Amino acid sequence: MAAELTAHQLIAQHRPTLDLALETIRTRAYWSPHPEHPKAYGENGSLDTAAGKAAFDALSGTRLDLGQPGTDGWVGGEVSPYGIELGVEYPHADLDVLLPAMKAGQKAWRDAGAELRAMVCLEILRRIADRTMEFAQAVMHTSGQAFMMAFQAGGPHAQDRGMEAVAYAYVEQSRTPDTAEWTKPQGKRDPLALTKRFTPVPRGIGLVIGCNTFPTWNGYPGLFASLATGNAVLVKPHPGAVLPLALTVQVAREVLTEAGFDPNLVALAAERPGEGIAKTLATRPEIRIVDYTGSTAFGDWLEANARQAQVYTEKAGVNTVIVESTDDYKGMLGNLAFSLSLYSGQMCTTPQNLLIPRDGIRTDQGDKSYDEVTADLARAVDGLLGDDARANALLGAIVNPDVKARLEAAAGLGEVALASREVANPDFPDAVVRTPVIVKLDGAKPEDEAAYTSECFGPVSFAVAVDSAGHAVELLRRSVREKGAMTVGAYTTDPEVEEAVREACLDEAAQLSLNLTGGVYVNQTAAFSDFHGSGGNPAANAALCDGAFVANRFRVVEVRHQA
Amino acid sequence: MAAELTAHQLIAQHRPTLDLALETIRTRAYWSPHPEHPKAYGENGSLDTAAGKAAFDALSGTRLDLGQPGTDGWVGGEVSPYGIELGVEYPHADLDVLLPAMKAGQKAWRDAGAELRAMVCLEILRRIADRTMEFAQAVMHTSGQAFMMAFQAGGPHAQDRGMEAVAYAYVEQSRTPDTAEWTKPQGKRDPLALTKRFTPVPRGIGLVIGCNTFPTWNGYPGLFASLATGNAVLVKPHPGAVLPLALTVQVAREVLTEAGFDPNLVALAAERPGEGIAKTLATRPEIRIVDYTGSTAFGDWLEANARQAQVYTEKAGVNTVIVESTDDYKGMLGNLAFSLSLYSGQMCTTPQNLLIPRDGIRTDQGDKSYDEVTADLARAVDGLLGDDARANALLGAIVNPDVKARLEAAAGLGEVALASREVANPDFPDAVVRTPVIVKLDGAKPEDEAAYTSECFGPVSFAVAVDSAGHAVELLRRSVREKGAMTVGAYTTDPEVEEAVREACLDEAAQLSLNLTGGVYVNQTAAFSDFHGSGGNPAANAALCDGAFVANRFRVVEVRHQA
Repeated sequence: MAAELTAHQLIAQHRPTLDLALETIRTRAYWSPHPEHPKAYGENGSLDTAAGKAAFDALSGTRLDLGQPGTDGWVGGEVSPYGIELGVEYPHADLDVLLPAMKAGQKAWRDAGAELRAMVCLEILRRIADRTMEFAQAVMHTSGQAFMMAFQAGGPHAQDRGMEAVAYAYVEQSRTPDTAEWTKPQGKRDPLALTKRFTPVPRGIGLVIGCNTFPTWNGYPGLFASLATGNAVLVKPHPGAVLPLALTVQVAREVLTEAGFDPNLVALAAERPGEGIAKTLATRPEIRIVDYTGSTAFGDWLEANARQAQVYTEKAGVNTVIVESTDDYKGMLGNLAFSLSLYSGQMCTTPQNLLIPRDGIRTDQGDKSYDEVTADLARAVDGLLGDDARANALLGAIVNPDVKARLEAAAGLGEVALASREVANPDFPDAVVRTPVIVKLDGAKPEDEAAYTSECFGPVSFAVAVDSAGHAVELLRRSVREKGAMTVGAYTTDPEVEEAVREACLDEAAQLSLNLTGGVYVNQTAAFSDFHGSGGNPAANAALCDGAFVANRFRVVEVRHQA
Repeated sequence: MAAELTAHQLIAQHRPTLDLALETIRTRAYWSPHPEHPKAYGENGSLDTAAGKAAFDALSGTRLDLGQPGTDGWVGGEVSPYGIELGVEYPHADLDVLLPAMKAGQKAWRDAGAELRAMVCLEILRRIADRTMEFAQAVMHTSGQAFMMAFQAGGPHAQDRGMEAVAYAYVEQSRTPDTAEWTKPQGKRDPLALTKRFTPVPRGIGLVIGCNTFPTWNGYPGLFASLATGNAVLVKPHPGAVLPLALTVQVAREVLTEAGFDPNLVALAAERPGEGIAKTLATRPEIRIVDYTGSTAFGDWLEANARQAQVYTEKAGVNTVIVESTDDYKGMLGNLAFSLSLYSGQMCTTPQNLLIPRDGIRTDQGDKSYDEVTADLARAVDGLLGDDARANALLGAIVNPDVKARLEAAAGLGEVALASREVANPDFPDAVVRTPVIVKLDGAKPEDEAAYTSECFGPVSFAVAVDSAGHAVELLRRSVREKGAMTVGAYTTDPEVEEAVREACLDEAAQLSLNLTGGVYVNQTAAFSDFHGSGGNPAANAALCDGAFVANRFRVVEVRHQA
């Protein structure tokens, strides 16, 4: 088939972008080709907010026919956390037909080489970017994120993370040249001379197991890392968040076809209610890579059982913020209040334990007791979320009944410093919207330990009274070592405390944000610059994105002969 | 303690070498700083052949006191495959004392940074290089390699592989800058600005489990990759090959001390007869990395059980050479004869199965029947090893009774094309020296399959009659997929056959040598240019050396604060 998109066209269009991405992962400076303001959309072929909404609405009542081989039925039934039924059906796959079909195009994809593969990936991302406002709706109505967050995190930020993975994959595959001439002197005899060819070869089929809360942001790194390194990719979305990844697969298949490759290099594996195909898929011999975001229990299961595959997991951790002292008390409270409220704390990066000395902290507004700090933080959250419109725009909706149940149970774990309240959403009356709860615990009381040493995913934080900064650092170390952490924060003006926290994070491999008081939050990371997770503590066995995340998705085969 | 070796001195001395190594792993051209001719030794502080022998002899009857904490006794008892008792004793470690002591120096080693760590590693390698001729004796009298091979493979080639690992480790750690300024525009508002620090942090203690046949060559990549990435390294040698790695640990501890670091960053774990400490060590929580060379059974055990660690294994495979046609019949026979004979076939890279069409092959000397090829190869081996002195210099000694037993049993597996014969070694009358056996098998007979589909480590090859080139490629594919292969060779003048073999190797991730007829052999690889293993088939889960071999030995911790 004649390709509609030639390699020449793709390289001309996307190579400069790749070069900027390559430069940025070296400098870690700020850069993104994906605008995060809604006004930037609606030109140059991209959908604006209204057109994105219309495209999303038009999907209702349709079948997303991806043209996949082995389709043996249709599945659907997603219900938005905002209460609406999505009404989209997806193909259900006969794996014994689909998986072999996914291998048919692998030779051509391998032979295309690292650069062309990167270009095709960037074209997929460009078309996704054009439909960002449609994806924003899809992410909003599967994750429960508020619109602006669904747009930003599910759109440009997810696309950034996908592009970052493409850049890392390209670097890694380019470290060895395509060919080499090797000439070894032999004294007076003729030298030994070999011609060597080096080819990056894929491992096979990569499986991406999506999550409910960040289907694109957490799904794109693995998807694009595997695809850019020559693998086929099967996407198994969370049953509650199929649409964003199904649209992604749709775009990928279109671009692959137009570029002259087999669309079956990317496919969707949606499942029937209760079918639970992830375990079956993850242990199929064709699956050689697994990317997973979700619960610790299933992540651990994958690491132990998907032995035929390279397994990259982002599981759960217990995130800690040490509050020891600050020279910007108001900024600290505002920053923390936002971190706790954003998407109702349903981020793997949201702080859970706030460790505060029971004797209080020094601030620019004088010494503050533990009770004062806790009360002031509660007031800051209240103030931030006092207006219902603003609260809805920040909180989004509770993604599922489990989160709601945990939130309700949390109030019984200790003294409530800030009670959770219901917020009505005038646009979506069925949405479950809740403000965060803050519960006081004592880090010296054994009976409180079970609460603050377990992950409580959702809008639940614990203000844990500690004996001292040293006690806080000790709890931090233990928590990261035993439970893992995606993020650690600390507020301190004391260089010794800062150093102790830093040492703890270096020892336990946790990513640390110090004294954030402005518009950057501990739960946010920027692609190309920040690492998401470290891969060195129990919360995740990989970081987004580094060399280790891509280097073992392919192998290099050398063919040598005498020159 | 004031360092005798300053960072400045080390960088001045070794940075140019590191830069050459970095350049070579990019170009894959020929380069080595370690001479492979004995005459090059004896100047600039290095021991010459006689001085190396004297140094080795002087070790007999001594205790190699490494000054390690937790030494609770002494172990020894190595007997050379050449029949002499080594008579060296090594410290036996109380792990509950030694392992904690190994962690004490990790902070300073981490804080030294990637460049200084690389310099210290290169200084260790330089001092090992000065003692190359002593190591040559130690390798000879543990592995049973002939002197020249023990010198070259155990000396300069092993040092090359160690340096290659240091170079890869340095590149990987240098991909992220130490610091970054990140400034994100916010329209009319002030930009968001963060200062970020990135620190490579080690995983913990790396365990190197050495092998009997190539203690230094196979041990150095893991040792130096882990050390250069900031980890401490515990070396657990094969009980039959302690001395080369014990001397390595001795040198490493000296250099670490002189450079102002804790010598306990590198330690030895020698064991009592039958103690079997590898399983205990590999599953200790302090051990976060394992490098292993040896049997498939134990490699698989490590991969399944050392779950707290990153595990890099080189196990065993079934290496195949397809003999389909050649335009240099004599060169092919000579090359193959050498490959089968070198170190009595006791290399993980030695060809085992020679797949030869039953209807014969085309050559520059006319068509040759299967029987003629087999007989001519047998004659070539006979000719190569006809002179006992030359035979001894090529074959070395049989490393242990298991190899001898397999060799003796092989003659019963089929028609013997070339019988193994005993060779007397006038210098070492107790050495077991044997020429290779070649046994004819039929790839179409099910009763022959068990033999050629199992690894038969040692001087045993099978001349397997196949129906056609296509049949050969099919057997090759199956063999690599099911049993793995460290090497694949092929002789063909037919571009279609060459392409089919190449495709099979790309699909199954096997390293391929085509039409070697001169002084390069399928079982040899050169550091900085050739990959040893692919990490993509069952013979090994890692390649020496690539990005994947080093990237997950450390993690990058980011500390960010408002600028």
